Amino acid sequence: MKIARFSVDGLDFHGKVEGDRVRVIKGSIFGDWELSGASYPLAQVKLLPPTRPVNYWGVGENYAKHVNYRLEEMGESFRPRSAAFTPWHKGVGSIIGTGDTIIIPPDADWIEYEGEICVVIGKPCFRVTEAEAPNYILGYTVTNDIGTGPTWAKSDFSLWRVKSCDTFGPVGPWIETDLDPHGVDIIVRVDGKEEDRGNTRDMIHNCFEIVSNISRHITLHPGDIITTGAPGLTRPLKAGEVIEVEIPEIGVLRNPIANLKE
Amino acid sequence: MKIARFSVDGLDFHGKVEGDRVRVIKGSIFGDWELSGASYPLAQVKLLPPTRPVNYWGVGENYAKHVNYRLEEMGESFRPRSAAFTPWHKGVGSIIGTGDTIIIPPDADWIEYEGEICVVIGKPCFRVTEAEAPNYILGYTVTNDIGTGPTWAKSDFSLWRVKSCDTFGPVGPWIETDLDPHGVDIIVRVDGKEEDRGNTRDMIHNCFEIVSNISRHITLHPGDIITTGAPGLTRPLKAGEVIEVEIPEIGVLRNPIANLKE
Repeated sequence: MKIARFSVDGLDFHGKVEGDRVRVIKGSIFGDWELSGASYPLAQVKLLPPTRPVNYWGVGENYAKHVNYRLEEMGESFRPRSAAFTPWHKGVGSIIGTGDTIIIPPDADWIEYEGEICVVIGKPCFRVTEAEAPNYILGYTVTNDIGTGPTWAKSDFSLWRVKSCDTFGPVGPWIETDLDPHGVDIIVRVDGKEEDRGNTRDMIHNCFEIVSNISRHITLHPGDIITTGAPGLTRPLKAGEVIEVEIPEIGVLRNPIANLKE
Repeated sequence: MKIARFSVDGLDFHGKVEGDRVRVIKGSIFGDWELSGASYPLAQVKLLPPTRPVNYWGVGENYAKHVNYRLEEMGESFRPRSAAFTPWHKGVGSIIGTGDTIIIPPDADWIEYEGEICVVIGKPCFRVTEAEAPNYILGYTVTNDIGTGPTWAKSDFSLWRVKSCDTFGPVGPWIETDLDPHGVDIIVRVDGKEEDRGNTRDMIHNCFEIVSNISRHITLHPGDIITTGAPGLTRPLKAGEVIEVEIPEIGVLRNPIANLKE
């Protein structure tokens, strides 16, 4: 089942995607809910980021091809970052939905894409095992974990600007609840041309291990999202381009790029 | 004026502190509001963290005495972290209020206190100057920026466990809106005994510079909080102790310490 969050006539709803329409959900997607009689054409609603998380977690360096790419780019100073499981907080203020514009900060080297599969937490979890983790996952969505070039990546130990500038967190278009997350393609296209393709079977830490590892120390809350790392390479994006990240079993996350208006 | 957030009879309110009572505020403290006729004895309400931020920002290494203390503890590997203005995201899920219990994670070396003054943002701001910053600040509160010992501090580049475990973010007891933040004492007591005392005049980056520096790159939202660094030394805390951070012009943030119940 595909669950979207959307806005129509000034109101926000969760809804079940049914073909080219979305049917309003009554109640909480994290608790008791039922389908209402009201549905809207998808073309007439504004899709929103599918949840409003307490925390947005990032897990980087989760595919060997990407780790090697970063080692080549950033040199040996990067190695400690890739040596252990060290997630980070992506600022929740960076989140945007599909269709929203990604803004290039004028002071960055550039911005670059990272197309990823993203875990959506369904129930509070603390200290769950890998085997238990699937019971706490509502589903999966698509993220574009936008970051900047190496100057800030080298100077900002916490990645505060690198990963969390306004608009750096596209999430969407919706949540797929029925998915084996460990064998799907992640495809990145710029202006319709395929730029990168990977498969989640190549993850170093799989989704269940990630949920278990974070929850070993910190509670995950309903609606929290965890982006699980880019599989391959990336490149700088330019204003005017349109970027798509597609996981065929979920959907397409599509965002235009623009410069900051000074 | 002191603005608290509190819970009474199952409802949450903002209110103005008037002596030993708190008067309910109608409307948004970030927009139009007025005082209602209802007030409660402070002793009969549960004080809550004063805002629900989108982002909780940390600024470390902001007093020379504290930077030197960390250099001695962690060695030269720490120096890059202290060399530039590099704030970090403290997980919003770590926030608790005054009176709530700080939990020691069983896998950490230990936990330690950092008593700090904390900026509370009142209006959205993006790319404001130091001179403009005060117009976007609602007031100041007190934080205890709990962190763990050096093992995680050395291994977790992003500080994800070091600074953001559940309960590591005590904030309160309320917001003081009429305060010059740059000449006040910060006093830390454990079980009533003074452990550390500093003064905000010794900040390396003052509150207005911090707001300007973050907003240069990322929007600050109403209710966002920025903790501005510990002035002095710290030490491990033990279960059963009670820690207080006081800024006399604001109030006392008081939290008991306990071990995680396994």
